[in-house]
Amino acid sequence: MISIVILGTGNVAKHLYEAFSAIDGVNIIQVVGRSEQKLLAFSNRTQVSSDFRDIKEADIYLIAVSDDAIGEVSVKLSDKKGLVVHTSGSYPLDILSTNQRKGVFYPLQSFTKGKKVDFKEIPICLEASQDDDLKLLDQLAHLISEKVFNISSEQRKTIHIAAVFVNNFTNHLYQIGNEICTEKNIPFELLYPLIQETANKISTLTPKEAQTGPARRGDMITVTNHLGLLENKTHKEIYSLLSNSIQKDYEQEL
Amino acid sequence: MISIVILGTGNVAKHLYEAFSAIDGVNIIQVVGRSEQKLLAFSNRTQVSSDFRDIKEADIYLIAVSDDAIGEVSVKLSDKKGLVVHTSGSYPLDILSTNQRKGVFYPLQSFTKGKKVDFKEIPICLEASQDDDLKLLDQLAHLISEKVFNISSEQRKTIHIAAVFVNNFTNHLYQIGNEICTEKNIPFELLYPLIQETANKISTLTPKEAQTGPARRGDMITVTNHLGLLENKTHKEIYSLLSNSIQKDYEQEL
Repeated sequence: MISIVILGTGNVAKHLYEAFSAIDGVNIIQVVGRSEQKLLAFSNRTQVSSDFRDIKEADIYLIAVSDDAIGEVSVKLSDKKGLVVHTSGSYPLDILSTNQRKGVFYPLQSFTKGKKVDFKEIPICLEASQDDDLKLLDQLAHLISEKVFNISSEQRKTIHIAAVFVNNFTNHLYQIGNEICTEKNIPFELLYPLIQETANKISTLTPKEAQTGPARRGDMITVTNHLGLLENKTHKEIYSLLSNSIQKDYEQEL
Repeated sequence: MISIVILGTGNVAKHLYEAFSAIDGVNIIQVVGRSEQKLLAFSNRTQVSSDFRDIKEADIYLIAVSDDAIGEVSVKLSDKKGLVVHTSGSYPLDILSTNQRKGVFYPLQSFTKGKKVDFKEIPICLEASQDDDLKLLDQLAHLISEKVFNISSEQRKTIHIAAVFVNNFTNHLYQIGNEICTEKNIPFELLYPLIQETANKISTLTPKEAQTGPARRGDMITVTNHLGLLENKTHKEIYSLLSNSIQKDYEQEL
């Protein structure tokens, strides 16, 4: 039985809490967070504390707070014997500078409040300063996910940048699509199946194979028409830059 | 029973053929295309012809050829009594200039060769120059889809631009994510669940609500770090432009 203290009460903390409390082999002995209000979500199921000087002994301390608070929280764990891990994609292992035993347990997913996710399919990226601790994290990760990877701080940084492109920027393109439709009284829902299919395709085709559209075909008439029809200056710039980038990728084939 | 002739042998033609031949109420009496080779895919199931002077009489002529050939094919149908429709998102109704009875039957989806789609969920955008013909197309569309919309040529143009953003450009962001990962020997598959979840979210949250990431948070340290780490000049430009655009959308909230 692996004993865990979760530090943090946000989205990631909640999703990890749910995942670990649904399985055997893990005992969440405490949730620690600044906000007594937010601790209420956990208080009828485990012990909670808003006092960072009152943290129980555990095998693993899972820090699931906002990125800029990780360092500060880890300092409060500096006298603990257990393994201290953070759950952030963008910060290196060494942000936990004061701890002897340290690691990273990064679930590569975008968590939404109140929306359940299937952890089995979520890649968990692990790192630890000591081999035994990596083994412990590996054991823990396999309890909830079938996709566990050893990923260095350097690689995690790269993954995080790639994630910004495929998640944050993609969602922004959805937002632009939404604005373009709404301006002309077209329900954005019309585009849901297309959005879904675009995402589904990458499991059977590489993005390079799956690419379609006017820029892909070198259809400059349509590209020019679209640029003429776009009213928003930023939308125009994005359309132009992305079309040029696609054309560059395919110009040798045309 | 609605009788149909399909003109074209590409992806859209094939997907429409499969959808209509799977249901009662439609009789595909002929498939017409230039390439005898491509007609072989249909020839054991219906009549085929590579001679555009040998087109049978039908209630509806479905033109599913590449955009720039629509006008030319429609000319060959100018003496037909049936309703002539094209299936393109980017061309107006009037590209079918020589036909008396004309319409548009535009399934809003990105079709991939050999990959079955569930037509029930695909929005079908209809337009016709005559009310009776719109009714006929509506009847036809409802046989295969639950999502049928009357969409003007003007609106369809807007939908097509929005589709370029959410489909073509999104796929290009996947491609960039793939490149960034591959350069550092990280399997791109790691990002599949994130890509899937990003697409799934829009059915429960608006893109504006679902937006996350450094630019959304106004986290300029991470934005600057990422720009410093990106090596490809175009990737840098895209990162910068999209981050600025996201920041503009949210700056009043920060």
